[in-house]
Amino acid sequence: MVHDTIAVLDCTVRDGGLINNHRFDHAFVGRCYRAVCAAGVEYMEIGYRNSRAFFPPSDYGPWKYSDDDDIRRAIGGEKGAARIAVMADAGRCDPAGFAARKDSPVDLIRVACYVHEMDDAIATAHHVLDLGYETTLNLMAVSHANERELDEALAKVAASRVPLLYIVDSFGSLYPEQIRRLAELFQAACPGRPIGIHAHNNQQLAFANTLEAMRCGASRLDSTIYGMGRGAGNCPTELLLPFLRQTRYRLEPILELIGTDFIPLRERYEWGYLIPLMVTGVLDAHPRSAIQFLEGERRNDFAAFYDTLRSMGRDDAAAP
Amino acid sequence: MVHDTIAVLDCTVRDGGLINNHRFDHAFVGRCYRAVCAAGVEYMEIGYRNSRAFFPPSDYGPWKYSDDDDIRRAIGGEKGAARIAVMADAGRCDPAGFAARKDSPVDLIRVACYVHEMDDAIATAHHVLDLGYETTLNLMAVSHANERELDEALAKVAASRVPLLYIVDSFGSLYPEQIRRLAELFQAACPGRPIGIHAHNNQQLAFANTLEAMRCGASRLDSTIYGMGRGAGNCPTELLLPFLRQTRYRLEPILELIGTDFIPLRERYEWGYLIPLMVTGVLDAHPRSAIQFLEGERRNDFAAFYDTLRSMGRDDAAAP
Repeated sequence: MVHDTIAVLDCTVRDGGLINNHRFDHAFVGRCYRAVCAAGVEYMEIGYRNSRAFFPPSDYGPWKYSDDDDIRRAIGGEKGAARIAVMADAGRCDPAGFAARKDSPVDLIRVACYVHEMDDAIATAHHVLDLGYETTLNLMAVSHANERELDEALAKVAASRVPLLYIVDSFGSLYPEQIRRLAELFQAACPGRPIGIHAHNNQQLAFANTLEAMRCGASRLDSTIYGMGRGAGNCPTELLLPFLRQTRYRLEPILELIGTDFIPLRERYEWGYLIPLMVTGVLDAHPRSAIQFLEGERRNDFAAFYDTLRSMGRDDAAAP
Repeated sequence: MVHDTIAVLDCTVRDGGLINNHRFDHAFVGRCYRAVCAAGVEYMEIGYRNSRAFFPPSDYGPWKYSDDDDIRRAIGGEKGAARIAVMADAGRCDPAGFAARKDSPVDLIRVACYVHEMDDAIATAHHVLDLGYETTLNLMAVSHANERELDEALAKVAASRVPLLYIVDSFGSLYPEQIRRLAELFQAACPGRPIGIHAHNNQQLAFANTLEAMRCGASRLDSTIYGMGRGAGNCPTELLLPFLRQTRYRLEPILELIGTDFIPLRERYEWGYLIPLMVTGVLDAHPRSAIQFLEGERRNDFAAFYDTLRSMGRDDAAAP
């Protein structure tokens, strides 16, 4: 199989930042960027581009905002081959404050939204396009949207200039057969428009769901080094690259960085296959209840956690 | 989707025994059996049924042989709802020494073989059937068999009385699309004969490959509690049961046992997603080189391990 139109986006620092409130130091982010460039990966998402008005700097590190100056400092002036992405949350970013692309190290601004924020997200995406950036629209928590909401949101995307739409399995609750149905739904609503996939690993399906989306035609694939990301984490970059079998990819820089940086990091921060996170995936619930449970003293009383969450019902468990 | 013809076989103690040379104590095996019964799982494989002539008792614990008396002691006399299975390695077991089924706690004897051992395996399976047991044939290391070898082996199965044939991805190297091709090949060669799937998790695909096999019609599904098994381990029972959505299954007994037994066990023994095992999966090599590497002092020098294994070539790396 040839995957010539595929592009991989490594979002290790952005999704991984949800573990430590985006407090990675600049040197670490620089090492990630150099490894991603050396591996031949097309994009690296370096953090969020959100507003300090919504996220006070006393609570978050630099990668919640990803100012152009912080990005320049992390990558050490010279940009490598990997294009740089940031993620803006619809309604919680300040698009008027974005520089034009020609004055920024950033190439791609991805706009993340829930299904009810579609108007705001599309307006932000259009603004970003007018500034010269690439953009994508990342439709989060897609497992919680009902069919009518999805149809309406997709019709808006179809009528917009948004060039690429992502399926985001925020809760890691989707099975491959559901990924297939969503991909078909997205493609039917927005014919000819490329789609992307961002998967979470609560049920050990992030890599498999990425492969399934690709089989259905998805061409933009998110991954993170050693699967680092909120909760159960994401599709591991080191698994995705060998599958693609393209001479432009090299696995060694990623493997080396896992050994030097991510093994120690995993001892400090917790992510990956942890049973409470598997339970929220199975029950299609937000991971926050699992993360909270893991901080408690009865963190191995998994059956109790499962029973509690199940008796709450999905919607309560998932409420913000 | 209804999965009425599906049966799950929990092989935690059998595949997990490859981690500690089958030295689980009888009480632990009893707890596993009771949890598997309470969860509504159809079969539990309790160990190997191999010959002491090939595997000296000085090197192995009781579950390399799984004598009827040890099984009775572990399950505490009274059998539960889960049928009991053992695995016999073709050419390294002693079928003449097996009791008749009516005199044994065992219901199912699975015969494991490589592609070149098919004649021996079929003879053993026929003997086992004649003793009154259920049987299956588990074709190991299927990723290393070439097409002609596979065709010949499958023709022999088609001509035999073996009622069920397993795809065994011993090295965790297969992608879902390869599982699909193998399932189609098996079904074309042995029309109407049920197939099973035994997956390893080196590339985090054991659960997904089990789902893919099921989509292709596989009806016998292997899993292990907390994914415990040699190297990267297997398809986790706790992920498979919720997918099946059958009222006969209950997740709580498995979750509880993970908390009480498997979290501590994982601190003592190593299995799961470890980078050297991911590398052997990617390179379709036997896990033993990774297990050896992990015992060394440079166990985090993943890029070096990858380069060494790659320069050896798959067949050298996989040689016994």
